[in-house]
Amino acid sequence: MSKTIKKIGVLTSGGDSPGMNAAIRSVVRTCAFHGVECLGIYRGYQGMIEGDFKEMGPRSVNNIVNKGGTILKSARSKEFMTKEGRIKAHQNLVNAGVDALVVIGGDGSFTGAEVFNEEFDFPVMGIPGTIDNDIFGTSHTLGYDTALNTVVDCIDKIRDTASSHNRLFFVEVMGRDAGHIALNAGIGAGAEEILIPEEDLGLDRLLESLQKSKASGKSSSIVVVAEGDKMGKNVFELKDYIEQHLPEYDIRVSVLGHMQRGGSPSCFDRVLASRLGVKAVESLLEGKSNYMVGILQDVVTLTPLEQAIKGHYPIDLELLRVSDIMST
Amino acid sequence: MSKTIKKIGVLTSGGDSPGMNAAIRSVVRTCAFHGVECLGIYRGYQGMIEGDFKEMGPRSVNNIVNKGGTILKSARSKEFMTKEGRIKAHQNLVNAGVDALVVIGGDGSFTGAEVFNEEFDFPVMGIPGTIDNDIFGTSHTLGYDTALNTVVDCIDKIRDTASSHNRLFFVEVMGRDAGHIALNAGIGAGAEEILIPEEDLGLDRLLESLQKSKASGKSSSIVVVAEGDKMGKNVFELKDYIEQHLPEYDIRVSVLGHMQRGGSPSCFDRVLASRLGVKAVESLLEGKSNYMVGILQDVVTLTPLEQAIKGHYPIDLELLRVSDIMST
Amino acid sequence: MSKTIKKIGVLTSGGDSPGMNAAIRSVVRTCAFHGVECLGIYRGYQGMIEGDFKEMGPRSVNNIVNKGGTILKSARSKEFMTKEGRIKAHQNLVNAGVDALVVIGGDGSFTGAEVFNEEFDFPVMGIPGTIDNDIFGTSHTLGYDTALNTVVDCIDKIRDTASSHNRLFFVEVMGRDAGHIALNAGIGAGAEEILIPEEDLGLDRLLESLQKSKASGKSSSIVVVAEGDKMGKNVFELKDYIEQHLPEYDIRVSVLGHMQRGGSPSCFDRVLASRLGVKAVESLLEGKSNYMVGILQDVVTLTPLEQAIKGHYPIDLELLRVSDIMST
Amino acid sequence: MSKTIKKIGVLTSGGDSPGMNAAIRSVVRTCAFHGVECLGIYRGYQGMIEGDFKEMGPRSVNNIVNKGGTILKSARSKEFMTKEGRIKAHQNLVNAGVDALVVIGGDGSFTGAEVFNEEFDFPVMGIPGTIDNDIFGTSHTLGYDTALNTVVDCIDKIRDTASSHNRLFFVEVMGRDAGHIALNAGIGAGAEEILIPEEDLGLDRLLESLQKSKASGKSSSIVVVAEGDKMGKNVFELKDYIEQHLPEYDIRVSVLGHMQRGGSPSCFDRVLASRLGVKAVESLLEGKSNYMVGILQDVVTLTPLEQAIKGHYPIDLELLRVSDIMST
Repeated sequence: MSKTIKKIGVLTSGGDSPGMNAAIRSVVRTCAFHGVECLGIYRGYQGMIEGDFKEMGPRSVNNIVNKGGTILKSARSKEFMTKEGRIKAHQNLVNAGVDALVVIGGDGSFTGAEVFNEEFDFPVMGIPGTIDNDIFGTSHTLGYDTALNTVVDCIDKIRDTASSHNRLFFVEVMGRDAGHIALNAGIGAGAEEILIPEEDLGLDRLLESLQKSKASGKSSSIVVVAEGDKMGKNVFELKDYIEQHLPEYDIRVSVLGHMQRGGSPSCFDRVLASRLGVKAVESLLEGKSNYMVGILQDVVTLTPLEQAIKGHYPIDLELLRVSDIMST
Repeated sequence: MSKTIKKIGVLTSGGDSPGMNAAIRSVVRTCAFHGVECLGIYRGYQGMIEGDFKEMGPRSVNNIVNKGGTILKSARSKEFMTKEGRIKAHQNLVNAGVDALVVIGGDGSFTGAEVFNEEFDFPVMGIPGTIDNDIFGTSHTLGYDTALNTVVDCIDKIRDTASSHNRLFFVEVMGRDAGHIALNAGIGAGAEEILIPEEDLGLDRLLESLQKSKASGKSSSIVVVAEGDKMGKNVFELKDYIEQHLPEYDIRVSVLGHMQRGGSPSCFDRVLASRLGVKAVESLLEGKSNYMVGILQDVVTLTPLEQAIKGHYPIDLELLRVSDIMST
Repeated sequence: MSKTIKKIGVLTSGGDSPGMNAAIRSVVRTCAFHGVECLGIYRGYQGMIEGDFKEMGPRSVNNIVNKGGTILKSARSKEFMTKEGRIKAHQNLVNAGVDALVVIGGDGSFTGAEVFNEEFDFPVMGIPGTIDNDIFGTSHTLGYDTALNTVVDCIDKIRDTASSHNRLFFVEVMGRDAGHIALNAGIGAGAEEILIPEEDLGLDRLLESLQKSKASGKSSSIVVVAEGDKMGKNVFELKDYIEQHLPEYDIRVSVLGHMQRGGSPSCFDRVLASRLGVKAVESLLEGKSNYMVGILQDVVTLTPLEQAIKGHYPIDLELLRVSDIMST
Repeated sequence: MSKTIKKIGVLTSGGDSPGMNAAIRSVVRTCAFHGVECLGIYRGYQGMIEGDFKEMGPRSVNNIVNKGGTILKSARSKEFMTKEGRIKAHQNLVNAGVDALVVIGGDGSFTGAEVFNEEFDFPVMGIPGTIDNDIFGTSHTLGYDTALNTVVDCIDKIRDTASSHNRLFFVEVMGRDAGHIALNAGIGAGAEEILIPEEDLGLDRLLESLQKSKASGKSSSIVVVAEGDKMGKNVFELKDYIEQHLPEYDIRVSVLGHMQRGGSPSCFDRVLASRLGVKAVESLLEGKSNYMVGILQDVVTLTPLEQAIKGHYPIDLELLRVSDIMST
């Protein structure tokens, strides 16, 4: 039987994403709402090892719902990968009176949480925070929707100059293992082609598509490339290859980079963060543990951490067809 | 048996919303993709009556995916409410060789489409375009997600000045019959209270809540009010009432108004518009008629127009609880 | 001879504006750069009276350069208008070891600073922070450039829906005594007419202009109205008047309100705030007092507070002509 | 004596920048206002050679004041560098009845205009359109203010993730020959160091500055680098160098690229474009030629094209000091 939970710790871990602060706020205020104490843990698992803690009440999360980044900071911790490090971390939580843990992060962070739970029978709950949207058990991770808007906004700007000069642009977006950002932002930005890890378009079809696009009267084109695209060429090599084969094109490359991780979260991400924070805390209070809270088919749900870590939320294949039709 | 469709007309009707242009683009390009002609109809049903048409090919919708408003313009048509007007409109479509119609708009527009279908056995398909999100058969209407971001962005600005001056703001947002915008944007913007048509909070509880909020140490507060709120007072009367009962508050009112209807669509709305446009055209080509295409549980679906008109997409009651907890 | 200054107090007063935080940061860091202490005074003159102070070092202003509002909060203080209140305030500064004061605000705030200087021979320096741009001695006040971008962004959204529906919009913007925002944002947003306090266009000419605009083939129109416009009618009365005389118009009103005061400052406002903060502190350290720092012809300059209070930065009359030509 | 001008041609040339459309609109409407015809020339000098023209009236520039890019498109023309090309271009203008030319672009474009004027005694007027702000005779080129806001907005996002991870970021911005963007956006974004072509900071001082910054308690840092920085290292080499010497830093690089050239122009750029367009046309009508219109000390002025081409608008050295103080 699970003992009564009187104090919950919360941390952010791994790559940060917009909406993490809104999730922290939600965890803190849900704790307060239920009369449970809340402890903020700085710099993820590393701060847990170092005892870098701060008591948090509902007023300590004022005015952060709209802020990018994470006020608890994030870090990767090698020490937490050792048994010794985790023992230290556990002892610190026990000393601070913490009974349960909410981990906001990606699958690496969840793996840490799962091991921690197993070793110390410590209640944990995960909230998916990453812009890549590559986590099984949730149709949307925190920050993903915001990142899509950031990317689309950037490509809109690039298109202004592309169409003024009749140019072809290769735009690299984040997504090492998953093409969610590339595929959705590519459709949203009206890209002519979208290259994602999940599908090897092939260089020949890319060439063909670009030629068809020019023939159809398009004077400028955008190709969106996920960083993890499987063509075996990075975006600059891709440019060189196309330039060699389609010398009539004036090509430029743009690598959007880390700005995709920042910015004020979209309304969707703020609401999602609020909902997931409530569910995470209340699930812990109900005695549940070792789950990730997520959203599936518009409903907040629990997925065992183990499944969330192993699986990946799949690309909607319908979107590949939509993309093809849109670039008619 | 439905005859083969060779030409599809498309129009926008009723209040405009961000994403309508992306939907027009999708309809036009899906037609082109399937070798079907497409006719743009200006100013909704009124333009149909006046024969205000323009042939549209894939290049006529270049560079509009990111534009607010509607290039086909919108209008309300009294004449179309008469049998005579509709006969004229039908004759114009027949003369122009149009076999089927895609109507982008809200429930008023769909009612027109349904009547038109019934009277002339003319294939019609609806795409929900309105920021209010009040249409049955789709969890998201075109423009709703964009409007949420616009509202949240405005309230973020208002909060800057509210918290600098320790003020209370009443912010009125759109939503005559539905509190979707108020409820979601209210949570997203961290509002202390949210007043919506679906729930009569009562003036006493509002007073109580504001007093509690002040007592808890909050120095500024935002109350989001849907224009259709059922308190029987408009937002200015509400202000007067609160000022009378809580004289310690320095209160201001902000009515966001029509800017909520404009702006470049969010990535979500652009992708949704692209998907719905494909589905609308392909459903017509498959011989279907009298449906609205929408999205439910992340899947594009068809709902009979009749149901879409009669019903309303319900408020997620869980969000009222989330809002309460968040304002702890 | 002025005694050596070892500690400078800084406050924000009156209506807040974007860039105030950047100015606070600049004052604090310039103090640190020169080895002078800095004391933050909360809630303007009221906080000075109540001794609501906080020591500020360079790290206490981290990550605020891009934040709207003011971390020092602002307030209007009736008590400071009394001799008694000012004596209390002065005593508090003396007790805290403060030798000089930087006041960030508008002309009301400067009047307070001037009186304070006169009564206690206390060195003061003003930094103009208000979105209205109505202060003599500076071509730009802090927040003005940001407010222009906010207004133009809102009207862009309104235009989306205006042109979709062939409507006429009256948009009221801030500016009780000065038409700077209306005139510049009106030109920037492509308004057909701009009504400002400095020029009484007259209702007849407005009617005439709108008729000409319609005749010239414009299907939608925006009229920007400064809240202090001298037509003797508020924006809703104006709407009624025009509707009566030009019944063919479908008119809507939008009052932009307080959101104009918030938001992340533009690059211009952040750079200006940084420059003015440096100049304010260094001028005090040079023994100067009773000036406002401002920018004139791209150069940072000092203007005696007395002149800054009495005068107004004039409207550029050339812009009225430009506006006329642009609405051809 | 200059003959009466009845028709003015307008083109955009070189790299595009936000505000070019607003300038085209201003030229077209000022022509209409004065009863002069206006001819749009597509793709700069190349379109002049190819006779790629379009008559433009006041309604053909509706709804473009807020659009990035240039509706007239831009191109670089090798053919125009030959006498033969220019003769063809001149003949086309004469055939089209064009008496004078407005060229919107950078110094390369102005050089073309000057040669053209000299060879054919053809009245020309330049409007400075480039984000780099490197043209003598104007304190602001069209697009510069917008680019600053774009850069600052991107760095704000990068800072979110930088400060969440205690990282150091090198952000490369445009400016091959001029550090205006880097210096102003660097101050605006709160950069710790700014590397510009006009000043060789030296690697040692950079190292020292970063060490001092860390020692002072800053947990994250942004270094803004103009692409034309004179350190002899590109931004990636710079990263490697610093990493070697300050291994405690976790460094990332972000190259903002072409998005800096696009986007909806700021209010400042729209108003400036409107003013410069009026002045350019009216100056031609007054018989002037071979000037660039610009803005100096807030006043619209004329500078001989020859001087505009040869000189450069200088960096404000005061800003280097401000930057130093701000990074205290």
